[in-house]
Amino acid sequence: MQPNSVNVALIGCGYWGPNLIRNFVSQPQSNLIAICDQDAGRLASLKSQYPHLETTLDSKELMTRDDIDAIVIATPVSSHYPLALDALQAGKHVLVEKPIASSSAQAQELINVASEKELILMVDHTFAYTPAVRRIRKLVQEGDLGKPLYYDSVRINLGRFQHDTNVLWDLAVHDLAIMDYALGKHPTSVSATGLAHFAGQHEDVAYLTCFFEDDFVAHFHLNWLSPVKIRRTILGGDKKMIVYDDLEPSEKIKIYDSGADLQKEPSNEPQKARIDYRIGDMAAPHISPEEALKLETSHFISCILNKEVPETDGHAGLRVLQILEAANKSLKNNGSPEAV
Amino acid sequence: MQPNSVNVALIGCGYWGPNLIRNFVSQPQSNLIAICDQDAGRLASLKSQYPHLETTLDSKELMTRDDIDAIVIATPVSSHYPLALDALQAGKHVLVEKPIASSSAQAQELINVASEKELILMVDHTFAYTPAVRRIRKLVQEGDLGKPLYYDSVRINLGRFQHDTNVLWDLAVHDLAIMDYALGKHPTSVSATGLAHFAGQHEDVAYLTCFFEDDFVAHFHLNWLSPVKIRRTILGGDKKMIVYDDLEPSEKIKIYDSGADLQKEPSNEPQKARIDYRIGDMAAPHISPEEALKLETSHFISCILNKEVPETDGHAGLRVLQILEAANKSLKNNGSPEAV
Amino acid sequence: MQPNSVNVALIGCGYWGPNLIRNFVSQPQSNLIAICDQDAGRLASLKSQYPHLETTLDSKELMTRDDIDAIVIATPVSSHYPLALDALQAGKHVLVEKPIASSSAQAQELINVASEKELILMVDHTFAYTPAVRRIRKLVQEGDLGKPLYYDSVRINLGRFQHDTNVLWDLAVHDLAIMDYALGKHPTSVSATGLAHFAGQHEDVAYLTCFFEDDFVAHFHLNWLSPVKIRRTILGGDKKMIVYDDLEPSEKIKIYDSGADLQKEPSNEPQKARIDYRIGDMAAPHISPEEALKLETSHFISCILNKEVPETDGHAGLRVLQILEAANKSLKNNGSPEAV
Amino acid sequence: MQPNSVNVALIGCGYWGPNLIRNFVSQPQSNLIAICDQDAGRLASLKSQYPHLETTLDSKELMTRDDIDAIVIATPVSSHYPLALDALQAGKHVLVEKPIASSSAQAQELINVASEKELILMVDHTFAYTPAVRRIRKLVQEGDLGKPLYYDSVRINLGRFQHDTNVLWDLAVHDLAIMDYALGKHPTSVSATGLAHFAGQHEDVAYLTCFFEDDFVAHFHLNWLSPVKIRRTILGGDKKMIVYDDLEPSEKIKIYDSGADLQKEPSNEPQKARIDYRIGDMAAPHISPEEALKLETSHFISCILNKEVPETDGHAGLRVLQILEAANKSLKNNGSPEAV
Repeated sequence: MQPNSVNVALIGCGYWGPNLIRNFVSQPQSNLIAICDQDAGRLASLKSQYPHLETTLDSKELMTRDDIDAIVIATPVSSHYPLALDALQAGKHVLVEKPIASSSAQAQELINVASEKELILMVDHTFAYTPAVRRIRKLVQEGDLGKPLYYDSVRINLGRFQHDTNVLWDLAVHDLAIMDYALGKHPTSVSATGLAHFAGQHEDVAYLTCFFEDDFVAHFHLNWLSPVKIRRTILGGDKKMIVYDDLEPSEKIKIYDSGADLQKEPSNEPQKARIDYRIGDMAAPHISPEEALKLETSHFISCILNKEVPETDGHAGLRVLQILEAANKSLKNNGSPEAV
Repeated sequence: MQPNSVNVALIGCGYWGPNLIRNFVSQPQSNLIAICDQDAGRLASLKSQYPHLETTLDSKELMTRDDIDAIVIATPVSSHYPLALDALQAGKHVLVEKPIASSSAQAQELINVASEKELILMVDHTFAYTPAVRRIRKLVQEGDLGKPLYYDSVRINLGRFQHDTNVLWDLAVHDLAIMDYALGKHPTSVSATGLAHFAGQHEDVAYLTCFFEDDFVAHFHLNWLSPVKIRRTILGGDKKMIVYDDLEPSEKIKIYDSGADLQKEPSNEPQKARIDYRIGDMAAPHISPEEALKLETSHFISCILNKEVPETDGHAGLRVLQILEAANKSLKNNGSPEAV
Repeated sequence: MQPNSVNVALIGCGYWGPNLIRNFVSQPQSNLIAICDQDAGRLASLKSQYPHLETTLDSKELMTRDDIDAIVIATPVSSHYPLALDALQAGKHVLVEKPIASSSAQAQELINVASEKELILMVDHTFAYTPAVRRIRKLVQEGDLGKPLYYDSVRINLGRFQHDTNVLWDLAVHDLAIMDYALGKHPTSVSATGLAHFAGQHEDVAYLTCFFEDDFVAHFHLNWLSPVKIRRTILGGDKKMIVYDDLEPSEKIKIYDSGADLQKEPSNEPQKARIDYRIGDMAAPHISPEEALKLETSHFISCILNKEVPETDGHAGLRVLQILEAANKSLKNNGSPEAV
Repeated sequence: MQPNSVNVALIGCGYWGPNLIRNFVSQPQSNLIAICDQDAGRLASLKSQYPHLETTLDSKELMTRDDIDAIVIATPVSSHYPLALDALQAGKHVLVEKPIASSSAQAQELINVASEKELILMVDHTFAYTPAVRRIRKLVQEGDLGKPLYYDSVRINLGRFQHDTNVLWDLAVHDLAIMDYALGKHPTSVSATGLAHFAGQHEDVAYLTCFFEDDFVAHFHLNWLSPVKIRRTILGGDKKMIVYDDLEPSEKIKIYDSGADLQKEPSNEPQKARIDYRIGDMAAPHISPEEALKLETSHFISCILNKEVPETDGHAGLRVLQILEAANKSLKNNGSPEAV
């Protein structure tokens, strides 16, 4: 490895791959040198756009090359684990699409191997690198919201059904990654419900509640069958509350100086709840339109060069998988709580 | 009783009572003759507006009067059952606020007494009498939506905490009454989760999933701590889908000619889900701005005069209570399913 | 007149009158003692609600009573001037609906008489007393917006056609009163265009531009034939900009820290405009839901008791009329500019 | 020219050029063979993406080549006329960006030359090829709206100031092209007002009213200094009304079955306007997300091959220019009407 740049190869050039290519190509400290896919036509088309890139149908070829420092994996979920394991064992740093693997056991093994070999293992929790989510994290960390009370997310639209996973694994993974990053809270147990409407297909509507050690609750609302598209998260704190709407072009985050407090003194009206309400100003900070993947790919390179721990490391990927695994169990039992 | 009109008395002149008074006063076939409340000042104020009304502090007085045919009960929940029972036993027809009683056992007893004495027992499920909900019921009954797939409701706002009940009993009762009326579906079991953030207070955030005999699922999302007010229900059918937003001033119901279908033939792309999407036109029928309570009070009088079964009879009140009782049990067990 | 209260009579009990009655009744320092209307049924109905009020069909009777200090006029526009003149000449203070008279000459005469007799003459520019408009005025006065650049208002809906005036006189009067109050700017000339679509009726669509001595422009967009209702004003300043949407239930005013500035130095790219843009945060201050008429009626009484000049005095009413008169002339000449 | 395909060259590879290149490359019946720009770096960058394209810095070179059938001009406005004239005189078909030229005299000359030489002259009024505007045209032509009453457009945002033209020429050109295409109506006179807030710059806020032979009025509302972006057109007919919001992702067109009618019989309430209102259903037809430029470039090729008149021919470009020229005159005279 040269001290100031990283040689990168990418495996998987489908839906997301071209975005990764574009960003790694424009990063000053990364040299994207090779791309791999099982579809020769796709490789040829990308080659015409990026003539300097080497192409290959065989991922194993990349693993053995000494001039490649890092492997980026953007393949279907089932191949995340074997490819990441091969890459780590070959001494390559790894950035892998979400979910990091197909099970928490696999994720744990990837973490272990990366740790032994002192390699960077990073999961592509893209939303963690959006200016909006980073602003939310900052508001939480600096105490603007006060004590977090609840996290409530709705992510619904019509389509796109997945053949190999249910709506929870397809959509909630985004929200769980956001919650993990912005709040740093991990649930102790979950309850999930849902329904598969089409014979032989996975659940297309699902609801997930996460319970925590303290007085905090999170709920996730996922649906592939909604006639309208909604991406809305409410994060309630005891000082302020945030509404984050990812579909809003210019006011993605609204911060409400509103809330409720328990009255200190008993009321002399015992038939009323002892809660005072507060309705105040709303503020919508300007959110930079910068592309998340630009920051994320730069961060991956920087972690490699400076031996730093990624913000979305293997443990972040593992935590999300642990929740999804427990959720799937609860889903089969109509909401019975499952420990995470 | 005169053949063409009904003499009515009202008990409970708090928040909702004046709306009932106004409507019973303007119904041509009802004679509101007396009102009762424990607050003498409130009675005096209403008397100045409606000088012809008799007022009393004692509800028992009304029960024994021969010239009163029907009693309307708009008191706090805990007194619904004893007052309704007294009235029925005294031979009066009864219209009672929701929830009809504090338990399903109480509701069943009211139904039994009313049945024995051939009296009308009606519960004030107001939303069932709104033009919007009646239009939804019509769309379901006439088959426009096809087979119902899911019901998904969000009813959140800041406040108003209740001292004697949780957010589920306070807010979900509206949605359960709407679902009962519009769809005529009753769940077999439920799973509910939630949290009470304030010491000594009831749950202020709650989520309820209802399971049914067939492939239908309903979810209710309730929150007293939301910085924004949302009243939105999505009803998905396999032909069309409805979005009902009660806060929309002029387009409360939007009907989407959108959906998804299982492909008949196996795809030759096994890695894709076998689902076809359909995105079509949207229509928002003009919804009359008529007041629900006008229709509801007229319906109560008409049921008495014509010996008809109310659209929201005691059984409707009972069904909603059965769901709420099961939900409360599940809530205490973090989502464990409970039979209804 | 007693030192601490004012005896008031109201003429005109139609659409707006009952709101005035309700507010004058609840003001601690006003005694509403009599109401007048040409419709005996209307008077009877209001008498049943407010039994202590005297009623009369004859406005002249009120003018001659010594125990009446102030007359409130809420009649059709054409009678504003004669009634207000009678009242002032009889020594009564006057609050009159907008527009204050049918012509600027009439308004000037009312101002003169009130001045001679040292009486309060106030026009009911209700919006000037709304918390939203008062907040805008404060933002302007305290310099938050910087130098005002433009005022742009859209006030459109379906109906209600007036038989005796065009859409400009019906709707723009609100916006002109808001601009007069919030900005304190008076145009030097106007250009107005519009169209009457129905034979024998007045213009139902109209547009009005106001020109000022400085680099400020105001535009008003009025329509009785719009399928959607819009009430939106944009006020641009060189520091900040406001969007005021009167139909927003909770965020009526949004303040944008956005704008444009002329570059100080010539650019070396002559083909580009020398303007820099700035896009910053948005803030929506909490606006009190207080009723405007409560503040306005209290202000009228206070002006009488303390001999103060009303915030919306006869001159404010005159200024609005001057603009409307010039606008009507321009309207007949397809936009030809007319001096105000 | 081969019978089944057209050889195309493009001049001007700035903001819009790459979109034209992408579409002409993917049209089966067009061969884009050369591109021209004054910026060699831009050409090199496009060459790397489209290695088969010839590049040149000299537009004259393209004019003399026999193998080029059509020239597409996407340069700054001032060069539209000389380049288009050269191309037509060299016997090439021409597609030129809007506005078609800098004056109506120039536009007329281009029309004349194209006519003499039997060449296609088409202006890139892109909106005319959007599925939304084509649907509006269809609704008008098929009589669904009834008689058109008014056209009302708001196109405002922050930036982008132009150095060589005012906001009217920059933004209203879109709306005038839409009106021309969808309604086929041409005004007889105009009134325009506006203001230039920055010394040495063009008008950044402008308002334009168009008058017609019949009872129809159109208004255009343009602003480079608005803190919010709005793209909303209302088209009122005497049967139905359309609201077209180009920023709506899924419901760009809403058709309201609402309106107003003059009463046939005189009312017995002379103080009321003789207008009846009608508020009915709303429908939002599904609008295809197809790219306008795909249809437009295909149409250009098809007109050449089949010797057909383009939907947005030189006359359409001329009509828009005639309105803009008259508007500029009126703008200098504060709204004085100008004949078109």
